[in-house]
Order: sequence, then structure tokens, then C-alpha cells
Amino acid sequence: MAELRLDPVAHRWVVCGRRQVMADFDDANAICPFCPGNEHFTPRSIQELRNANGTWSARVFHDRAPIFLVEGKEDRQAVGMFDRMNPIGAHEIVVETPQHGVTLAELPVSQIEKCIGLYRDRILDLKRDARLRYVSVFKDQGLVAGNEHGHSHSQVLASPVLPQFLEIEFRWSKLHFEKRERCLFCDCIQQEMEEGKRVVDQNGDFIAVCPFASRSPYELWVLPVRHSSSFERDLTELARVKSLASFLKPCLQRIEKISVILHFVIHTEPNLEAHKPTRDWWGTVPDDFHWHMELHPDVEGERRYLGSEGFYFNPIPAEEAALVLRALEPECGAAPPAL
Amino acid sequence: MAELRLDPVAHRWVVCGRRQVMADFDDANAICPFCPGNEHFTPRSIQELRNANGTWSARVFHDRAPIFLVEGKEDRQAVGMFDRMNPIGAHEIVVETPQHGVTLAELPVSQIEKCIGLYRDRILDLKRDARLRYVSVFKDQGLVAGNEHGHSHSQVLASPVLPQFLEIEFRWSKLHFEKRERCLFCDCIQQEMEEGKRVVDQNGDFIAVCPFASRSPYELWVLPVRHSSSFERDLTELARVKSLASFLKPCLQRIEKISVILHFVIHTEPNLEAHKPTRDWWGTVPDDFHWHMELHPDVEGERRYLGSEGFYFNPIPAEEAALVLRALEPECGAAPPAL
Repeated sequence: MAELRLDPVAHRWVVCGRRQVMADFDDANAICPFCPGNEHFTPRSIQELRNANGTWSARVFHDRAPIFLVEGKEDRQAVGMFDRMNPIGAHEIVVETPQHGVTLAELPVSQIEKCIGLYRDRILDLKRDARLRYVSVFKDQGLVAGNEHGHSHSQVLASPVLPQFLEIEFRWSKLHFEKRERCLFCDCIQQEMEEGKRVVDQNGDFIAVCPFASRSPYELWVLPVRHSSSFERDLTELARVKSLASFLKPCLQRIEKISVILHFVIHTEPNLEAHKPTRDWWGTVPDDFHWHMELHPDVEGERRYLGSEGFYFNPIPAEEAALVLRALEPECGAAPPAL
Repeated sequence: MAELRLDPVAHRWVVCGRRQVMADFDDANAICPFCPGNEHFTPRSIQELRNANGTWSARVFHDRAPIFLVEGKEDRQAVGMFDRMNPIGAHEIVVETPQHGVTLAELPVSQIEKCIGLYRDRILDLKRDARLRYVSVFKDQGLVAGNEHGHSHSQVLASPVLPQFLEIEFRWSKLHFEKRERCLFCDCIQQEMEEGKRVVDQNGDFIAVCPFASRSPYELWVLPVRHSSSFERDLTELARVKSLASFLKPCLQRIEKISVILHFVIHTEPNLEAHKPTRDWWGTVPDDFHWHMELHPDVEGERRYLGSEGFYFNPIPAEEAALVLRALEPECGAAPPAL
């Protein structure tokens, strides 16, 4: 049985132990388990969107070898001076289209809308569980071989602890808010709009920027212009989902022109309904955080994390990357027909 | 010209811009520039150890495409709300043996002693520069192809800012010290010695442990049993260097039996002579830090950083890894003859 362990020095949670493949779902690698007709190779749907003819247009189910599990108790305990707990939470797969071999960027805006709606719904649903402190939505496209990896999907990970990178972000954005009584991200957006040279696109509701200290070439952040700490609460109205979908599509297309490998992750506020944490610096964040999406293309040989050294090294400065990304014409007409 | 940029949200320094290859040293890929006779393909030696016959047994020189540069001023400036500075510092290569195709683990203990002495000397020398806040020594073995990568070497990186992972370690070890008035690492060592099940080796001076929350299978930490915050000040006496060398060799051999890919990095205190930082939580660390080496074999397909999710996932718990590593017989007799 896997467990979550806390490193007391780096204050970093590690999931230790082998992933258990759910019974009956361990032989699905020969065919694509995400394609229509192969639903019996995946767990039952948690949520499904249906077309008028009754077929599904997008669906969500548990990962077959989940990193975090719904069952069980948190059971956080001391092991001498160390800390451990059960890896309770959830690990879900969002299949974004019935069509195999099509990327999210290639889907029609109406289908991207549906995916954004599913991300929102899953976060809202999982945050009703007060044991869970955070829900992360992310995509790893093109990195791993395997049939299901040719079928556009994202992952949802709900965890009883905060991911380390978010602890850090919350800490610094909170510090900024305490000093200035303004949101750190709002200040960044204002400066980016004034300077212009790192802005790739904007539509009034959203802005896409190559961040000043981009870790990798063509890193791109998508942020709401209007302050909002929560992806899931910001996107309750359909008009806003539509605005994000139509804004996101050309952003994804631009990244795909750089590389077929694409990562994105949504950063949103922690679960405000969860047990109040003992450390106050990430306890409350309604005003001092700002949700955003971080997108990375993986450019072979150009992206490099100097892990041992603790620095990122990025050969292409943000201004140059933004110039290139702006110049790329997203092909909005090239999308496949709606399903 | 590259520059260091600070991300205000993640508080993460990124080196932005292309690495400049030093003139005359950009065509050395066809032969190994680290072999004796090819010294003209590398910059001049900064430090060299000599045999009785006048040939070198180990040497240090500037990297041909340094990430941090000795020349110039720090020139830390605001760019609106952002921060930038020049990437001053140093980036040096330690060639650990004249012999091509031999790993550090395979070298005789007497040669490993010399390497440890060089690491210490380079850290001490670079910390005399009050502009530099940290000096990192690390090895990436077997990860990249290329002639020089078949020739055992380590790297030294001196930077005007702290690597992020050290900022975090200093923060949590300082907090522990404030609460308990004991060193966090000393407490860990005591518990590890009592429990025993994660200890791989010890010799009275040093202990090798698979850390409780190991990020990757067979991660191994080497720590001095006696409290010391500073690698470079702890190893001023030859007897202590000899003790570490004879302890380190079987540790490296054990890791090499798991994988030819091997990373290590020395974590030591920051430069106490550097400009006093504005943030107090990593300003002084004589008692609340404990130097150590972190070693990782890279096990294909088993090590996985769930980057987007912010958690490490490690299928092999520390206790199981320690059991395996202890059982591996290091072949101390198999070393090549001393040069």
C-alpha cells in the first residue's frame, strides 16, 4: 500500500510505493481504452457529456492505476520525527473527445468549452470533500508513447496536501498582498500590458504572456485579466467559459507549432473547505492568489532544468519567445468538425 | 548576454539567454578534451594536482560555455516590479582522473581523496568572493552522450543567489532549530541510527541513509555524524578527507550497481561572507544546517517526477531500497591502479 511521506528537510511530500492497477484494467495497452466502444477497458464514467444521438462527447473516469485513492482515512501520523499519511484523494482521466489522434488544440472551440466545463465540474465536485486540500488539472501531451497517449486527455489529481510549487506561490503572493494590499498577479498583468513586449494575445477577459522569468523557451501563461483566485468559481457562467475556450484554442495552436509535446497545468486556490491547516501562510487566499494556466512546449534539447544546481536555464528570453509566438498564425479554420 | 531573472510568483531565479562558448574551444567534440594531451582544447587550469613525474592527476578549469561568469558586476536592478541581475559567478569543471572511461566509483580511494580535496578547495576559494552567495558541487554521470561525458568529472557552480532547493532546506532546518534548539539533520540521523532500517552504511564519521521520503528509488544521502554545517570547513584535516573518501567509494559503487546514470550534489552552507541578504531566514546558518551529499541513480522508467502535479512518485520505499543497497557487495578490489 502506497503512502504519502513528508521530507522534513525539503518539506516535500512524496508518494511512496507501487501503483496498484485496478483489477480487470491491466491489459488494455493493445488497443486505445479511450476510444468509443472500448469503455469496458476503463472504469465506469464519473461524469459524461452526451450528444443528441446518445453517444458521449467527453467523459471522466478514475485512472486505472491511481496515485491518490478515494477510499480510506487520512490517518496522518508521526513516525518518530517524520510524517506520513494515506494517499487519499482522487486521480481521474478526462477524455476530451471521442476522436483518436486529435489534440485539444485541434478540437473545435465548442468542444474545448466542454472540456473546460468538465475541469471546472471535477474541481468543484472534489472540493466538496473536506479531506482534500487541492485539486490539480493538467495535461502531458506527446511525452509518453502508448495507445491512450494518442487520445487527447487531461488528468485531475485531488490530494490531501498542497503540491510544493503551490505552497511556494501562495507564500510569495500572500507576502506581496500583505505589503501592498494588491494582488501580485494583477500587478504583473498591469506591467505586462504596459510593456507589451511579453504579451502574446489578449481578448479583454484573458491575457497570454511569456512570463518575465520563463523557465523554458516559449513558456506561456494564460490569466484572467479581472482578479479571481479560483478557476472553478470564475467559470460558472457559460459566456466566460466560451470566452476562455476561444482564447485558449489559438494559444494551444501556437504552442503546438513549436512542439508536439505540450504540458499545461491549472493553478487555482486550495480547497477553502478543507481542514484548516496549521501553517497560516496558505490558509486563506481569496484575494492574494490569482488562478492561471501554465503552458510549456517541450523543445528538444532547449529546455533544461539544472536540477542539481537548482536553477533553470532558458536560452530564449521571454521577449524573443513572445515575438515568435505572436508571429505564428493560429489556424482557427483547420479544426475537425464538431462531433 | 544572459541575465538572471527572478520570478516574483515562484521566487525562482532563471538564467535567461544563450550560453556563450569561449572562443577557440567550440570544436572539441571530436576528441575528449579532458584527456591528457588535449589540454589545449580546454581553458587554462585554475587548479591542478601533479604526480611525482610532473603529469597531472586531476585538474580544474572554467567550463567552455559557462552559465555563470566571473567578469562583471552584480548590477541587481528592478525592471518595474521584476528583478534582474547579471549572472556573475563561476562555472568550473573538475576532471577527476587522467584516465578516460573510468568512473569516480572505480577510482582508488587515494584518487577520490584528491577529488574531495579539490571540491573543498574550489568552494573555499570561490567563497572568498563576497559577491557570491553559494557554491554548488555536483556530478551528472552517464546522462548525456559526448566524448567528455565518458571522462569522469564534476562541476562547480558559484552563484550570486541561492538555488531554490537550498532556500527551502535552510528555511525548514532553521525553523526546526528555532523550535527545538537542535539541528534537524542531527535529529534525523539519531532516529535513523535507532531505527536502522534505512541505514545503508556507517563508519563512525559518516552515515549513508535512504531518506524517509526518498524522491527516487535508491536515493542515498551521505551525512557527517558529527554536526557540521559546512562541507568545506569540515574537511580541512587530511584524516577526515581520507575517512570520507573510503566511505564514499562503496556508496558510489552500490549506486553504480543499480544504474550507470548517477547524480550527486553536495549541500553546504551559503557563503557567510556574502552581502547580508534581506531575508533573515537564510542569513545565518552555522548551527541550523548540516552539510550532506545527495546521490541518485537514475533508474529507467522508475524515477518519475510528477512535475505538473508537484509531487514525486517513488515506487520503491526507502526501507526496501536500503535492504537492496546493503546487500550489494561493493567491489573494493576492482579499482584500477593509482595513477
